[in-house]
Amino acid sequence: MNPVPIQDSYPDGFSHCYGCGRFNERGLQIKSYWDGEEAVCTFTPRPYHIALPGYVYGGLIASLIDCHCIATAAAAAYRAEGREIGSEPRLRYVTAALHVDYARPTPLGVPLEVRAWATEIKGRKVVVMATLSAEGEVCARGEVVAVQMPEHMLPGQTQER
Amino acid sequence: MNPVPIQDSYPDGFSHCYGCGRFNERGLQIKSYWDGEEAVCTFTPRPYHIALPGYVYGGLIASLIDCHCIATAAAAAYRAEGREIGSEPRLRYVTAALHVDYARPTPLGVPLEVRAWATEIKGRKVVVMATLSAEGEVCARGEVVAVQMPEHMLPGQTQER
Repeated sequence: MNPVPIQDSYPDGFSHCYGCGRFNERGLQIKSYWDGEEAVCTFTPRPYHIALPGYVYGGLIASLIDCHCIATAAAAAYRAEGREIGSEPRLRYVTAALHVDYARPTPLGVPLEVRAWATEIKGRKVVVMATLSAEGEVCARGEVVAVQMPEHMLPGQTQER
Repeated sequence: MNPVPIQDSYPDGFSHCYGCGRFNERGLQIKSYWDGEEAVCTFTPRPYHIALPGYVYGGLIASLIDCHCIATAAAAAYRAEGREIGSEPRLRYVTAALHVDYARPTPLGVPLEVRAWATEIKGRKVVVMATLSAEGEVCARGEVVAVQMPEHMLPGQTQER
């Protein structure tokens, strides 16, 4: 498994996201790691990420799947071009569509593992599928349609660190 | 418009949700109001609910649509039975599937309006559609498949307030 999180390759201007921005002190700061043919992320919800007593809030599950799939889209697109993650020109994606199927209630208090892989890379679009598991059982499945970020949204292509 | 939020009819044991629980001090505490044939919710994201500078985080948008549609499902089901919202036996729903199409970037710093309406009520299932708008423009569209909560998840049917 690549020991550097995909999100660490995002330029500083792309790193404020509530879900995965390393500069968002109030955010989730999830980290996604490339692992062979897929990316993996582990996150333990806080006690207040609750739906009903004992179960994880579905909006958090959607958020984890969203951010992790967007990171996976970037990593998969770099790989398809035979380039190192984070190399110039930058590839950064946004969500066009998000779908989550909640297969079973997700227990609160244990680490959740999200795994995602690209199923289609075509032009500016990457389709990514994901599973979210707790204690070895799949609790939710997701699909994200990711599109390369429009130029007018880019806060600057240079990594300033 | 009904002046009482749908979420205020949830029993105390159902009111810890990160998205809409009135007892979740760390949560979003969204409020959904029944308005004729649909339900409306207004929410102003905090500055840290950011995706990129100037734009709202997609996971928050998914969360708002999810919780608001679940409230709409309950209100619509009560209405279909000709009963007052919150009357016994309680109707409370969970999310089986969530889909969000992000039509355009959602500006940060302005109130967002979510409107939702039921398109199907059948047995234990309610299908709800939603739009999320900023400054009069639709930024996202959502669909939630809501199912009546399984008995084993019910934390107690009596409203304790």
